Amino acid sequence: MRRLYHLPLSPFCRKVRLVLAEKKLDVELIEERPWERRLDYLRVNPSGKVPMLKDETLNIADSTAICEYLEEVYPDPALLPDTPAARAEARRLAMWFDDKFHQEVTINLLYERVNKKMMNAGAPESAWIKAGLTNIKYHLDYMAWLLDQRKWLAGDQMTIADFAAAAQLSCLDYTNDVDWARQSLVKDWYSKIKSRPSFRPLLADLVPGFVPPAHYSDLDF
Amino acid sequence: MRRLYHLPLSPFCRKVRLVLAEKKLDVELIEERPWERRLDYLRVNPSGKVPMLKDETLNIADSTAICEYLEEVYPDPALLPDTPAARAEARRLAMWFDDKFHQEVTINLLYERVNKKMMNAGAPESAWIKAGLTNIKYHLDYMAWLLDQRKWLAGDQMTIADFAAAAQLSCLDYTNDVDWARQSLVKDWYSKIKSRPSFRPLLADLVPGFVPPAHYSDLDF
Repeated sequence: MRRLYHLPLSPFCRKVRLVLAEKKLDVELIEERPWERRLDYLRVNPSGKVPMLKDETLNIADSTAICEYLEEVYPDPALLPDTPAARAEARRLAMWFDDKFHQEVTINLLYERVNKKMMNAGAPESAWIKAGLTNIKYHLDYMAWLLDQRKWLAGDQMTIADFAAAAQLSCLDYTNDVDWARQSLVKDWYSKIKSRPSFRPLLADLVPGFVPPAHYSDLDF
Repeated sequence: MRRLYHLPLSPFCRKVRLVLAEKKLDVELIEERPWERRLDYLRVNPSGKVPMLKDETLNIADSTAICEYLEEVYPDPALLPDTPAARAEARRLAMWFDDKFHQEVTINLLYERVNKKMMNAGAPESAWIKAGLTNIKYHLDYMAWLLDQRKWLAGDQMTIADFAAAAQLSCLDYTNDVDWARQSLVKDWYSKIKSRPSFRPLLADLVPGFVPPAHYSDLDF
């Protein structure tokens, strides 16, 4: 049985869960709290991070490596386009959300509000929350700029870039940090992706001590 | 003509330069200082980061997207192995250096010592330097553990993982932050990769205001 070591509010784990579900691949979810530094986990994944995918024959760590692997072994449905140039654009934007958006927004908001509390690492820093709330505006505007020219973030086809973005945003929606009124194009895009069957398990996640806003799991938000 | 917008001491730019050179692809290097936020650059690459590869027909930003593109379009010599499992291991380790090593080591050492000065952003923080110097030990030990079982980092074939690692280490070697005496297996591995023709231009880089140690460009260090 395929297993995914994950955290419910990790955007990287959510990206992999979405890709697995889009490709109709069953997986058993096992919660792993990286900050507990469990020795048996570190033995198989010395980075200590989530997600890690454990197959019958191999362990794969790192969400980018996992998604590329799944795309190679289970190419249907394709989450990368056909041409190298279009694939480069999808990968550029997937990395935009995994790297730039995560650094500028997710760390400042989600990690301050949620992870810090789960780790008993003190109160959220208001300066970081403020920075995250400022930064997310620019990212939503950039997404709207892309979606004004394209059906999906990387082009006319739904790709890994959309799942990378939706994974980050869904975590921030759980903490009510996304102003959906800011850009209707982004809201329409998120509404489409949120309605997919692959998204349902994410919307059912509940993290003890943190209550998502009513609209979080509402498909008609 | 192919152009790479880069910074000489950016590990991500160095990774792409190594891949281009291994594949014998000519490129014109153009220095771009991301912190100057040059408007013409932001127009084509809104992330504002380096590297960006500009081809006749397209711009590709993000070093991971660039390397995957180059591997697809110029597959010879291959820098990813043949099987999906082996490719996953190469990508996992490339991301290890791009993400984990970079966060835990490079930011604390290189960015504190060099980038901060270039940006006129104050003196290096000794706490961060100390953290970087502690963290690099664990990474060198992990590399030695891998190299004790394998010829190259991801297996018996030289891959993108080796270039991702060598790119980070070469920048830290410029600031004399690598204790090569710690792990002879790592030193032997670096010696092999440093001797490749693709490495020569990196060893000739000189950043005004920062003098590399004598052994930096010495192939017999």
